[in-house]
Amino acid sequence: MFRLVSIRNASRRLYSARVKTTDFKITAQDVPDDSVVFSMIQPTGRFHLGNYLGAVRVWKDLCDLKGDNIKLLFGVADLHAITVPKPDGSKFRQLRNEAIASILAVGVDPSKAIVFHQSSVPQHTELHWILSTLTPMGYLNRMTQWKSKANVNDNSSDEAMQAVKLGLFSYPVLQAADILLYNATHVPVGDDQAQHLELTRHIAGQFNKTYKCKHFVPPATLLAPTKRILALNNPDKKMSKSDPNQNSVIYLNDTPKIISAKIKQALTDSISHKFYFDPVNRPGVSNLINILSGILRLSISEVEDEISKFDSHSSFKDYVSEILIEELKTPRHKFEKLMRDQAYLQEVSEKSARSAATIAEPNIQKIKNIMGF
Amino acid sequence: MFRLVSIRNASRRLYSARVKTTDFKITAQDVPDDSVVFSMIQPTGRFHLGNYLGAVRVWKDLCDLKGDNIKLLFGVADLHAITVPKPDGSKFRQLRNEAIASILAVGVDPSKAIVFHQSSVPQHTELHWILSTLTPMGYLNRMTQWKSKANVNDNSSDEAMQAVKLGLFSYPVLQAADILLYNATHVPVGDDQAQHLELTRHIAGQFNKTYKCKHFVPPATLLAPTKRILALNNPDKKMSKSDPNQNSVIYLNDTPKIISAKIKQALTDSISHKFYFDPVNRPGVSNLINILSGILRLSISEVEDEISKFDSHSSFKDYVSEILIEELKTPRHKFEKLMRDQAYLQEVSEKSARSAATIAEPNIQKIKNIMGF
Repeated sequence: MFRLVSIRNASRRLYSARVKTTDFKITAQDVPDDSVVFSMIQPTGRFHLGNYLGAVRVWKDLCDLKGDNIKLLFGVADLHAITVPKPDGSKFRQLRNEAIASILAVGVDPSKAIVFHQSSVPQHTELHWILSTLTPMGYLNRMTQWKSKANVNDNSSDEAMQAVKLGLFSYPVLQAADILLYNATHVPVGDDQAQHLELTRHIAGQFNKTYKCKHFVPPATLLAPTKRILALNNPDKKMSKSDPNQNSVIYLNDTPKIISAKIKQALTDSISHKFYFDPVNRPGVSNLINILSGILRLSISEVEDEISKFDSHSSFKDYVSEILIEELKTPRHKFEKLMRDQAYLQEVSEKSARSAATIAEPNIQKIKNIMGF
Repeated sequence: MFRLVSIRNASRRLYSARVKTTDFKITAQDVPDDSVVFSMIQPTGRFHLGNYLGAVRVWKDLCDLKGDNIKLLFGVADLHAITVPKPDGSKFRQLRNEAIASILAVGVDPSKAIVFHQSSVPQHTELHWILSTLTPMGYLNRMTQWKSKANVNDNSSDEAMQAVKLGLFSYPVLQAADILLYNATHVPVGDDQAQHLELTRHIAGQFNKTYKCKHFVPPATLLAPTKRILALNNPDKKMSKSDPNQNSVIYLNDTPKIISAKIKQALTDSISHKFYFDPVNRPGVSNLINILSGILRLSISEVEDEISKFDSHSSFKDYVSEILIEELKTPRHKFEKLMRDQAYLQEVSEKSARSAATIAEPNIQKIKNIMGF
């Protein structure tokens, strides 16, 4: 028992040293020269506001500030996606396409960033196997994500635990391979992924120790400042594509009319003369304030100042709608245009996969050479 | 509990239907036209008698009877090998080379069979990942090999179980990928691998069921008739390269002098007027009889007839030595020659890896296409 606790403390120290929360707009100081920035998103289809503010907008920001000696790799994690069954192949193909289109639609520039499908670069799974030989089962057992995805917990029946698929359990090792394959130095992720990044650093250290080398450099975690975006009609849970109430979700390609309608229906409360941030007592209003804070790149109190003039639900909500419509105007048009040009999407992802492979292949050769392959 | 038992019974039925023990010499009936035969061996270096009789001699036999419409793939399982740490890269490289040289030395013909390093065909790990998303943790938990390799059992402490590396645990899924990657129809293995073949058939079925297709055909197991070859000085355990008493192990490239010396020292018993098979009371003698049976391709009772003329340890052992020396004469010379010609070994394994990839790549593309990649 003591031993487990001491391991946890050791990881926590490493964790804090390597995790940085960026400001609302990432700056050149966050990613110095020679950085390799790597990040991935699940192909759940066209993006919603949570994907945008929590993950992908920072990819666009990185494109905007990219110097010549910085590499940017942004992937669609389609190999991760199959850890939750995707039995309908043609639907899955559609979701994968929409993910690439969404990335480009929010302004990620494919001439500056490598935008690719994970499954197109087989070196990811090669390194996954290699790293799996260095990863203790016990470490994976402590991860929380597979348990929540499989709807099990430490007290679940043996039968339920044993039905969990290997892929879901070993997911974080593939994630470590994704990152270490490109010797990524900086990994922007949401806070639900911070635990996996910690494991990545552990595995990198294990490889170096086992093979007496300094091949892998543990990557740093970059946490975006935007807090989790919640469902508009149920601010107890995350905004999610799979929400049965689709009015809870704002999509990248929602029309102004749809955006207004969804915001009008968003759950708030009975206080209408003043709008302020109080996630415990006013979760719905606080979620809208959080959305404003994310889009406007303002702190919560700056947003509170901004909205102090509103004294009715309708004026406050009209303002939220207006900000959202303006922010999503270009992404919506771009998304629709890109989805009509499948040849272009294919060209971008194929060309990017080749570029990714030119970084991945020499690295995997070096790794295999160290190991005696 | 009931549920577990019923699963086991179901597997046992499948198992018996798909497992065939071949006669001492494999025949064309065992591998009909259009068969794809796949097998692998661990790169433990130059082969010993156990590798030869238990695994690789049948590969040579298959080359001898191969028709135009049969594919033979024989691999060095170097990705499996790293599930037990191989921290010394140059030593591991040497072992991998010796394995390829040993396969060719026993008479496997590289113009008839694809003889390759598993690690040279990245599609193995690609399919491993895909199949891992279909494999229940509980099924892997019931496998016996990882427990014996990790020196743990169902009663081991949590700490010991949790220290086991993921790669060792997921080993049988990579093995399933190895086999299904080539749509192998027949897999010659030793009986310690029969359980893994059963899992392979289970996973093949899971894929077909999940993706509503008939892509994978469950492969058949071919069990060689030769029983396990035991250590000459300690017939309680398998003949093994890692035996601290190297006199217990006959290598493919042992000289006649060395073979005679090792057989002279082999553990027998005090009965010297008659030599017969009785593994419980006469394990040493029975092991030598088993070796004779394997090499001469005779049943145990035929060997007993053959050796009934001997009435002293020395005459019996001289006979065993003579048979071994004759059998290993060509392999020894070939092995030494091949090890002096590293360029040729590399040429064979690289050319074979390309041939393997021409089967693997279209298959992985088909699989990914079914899944919507």
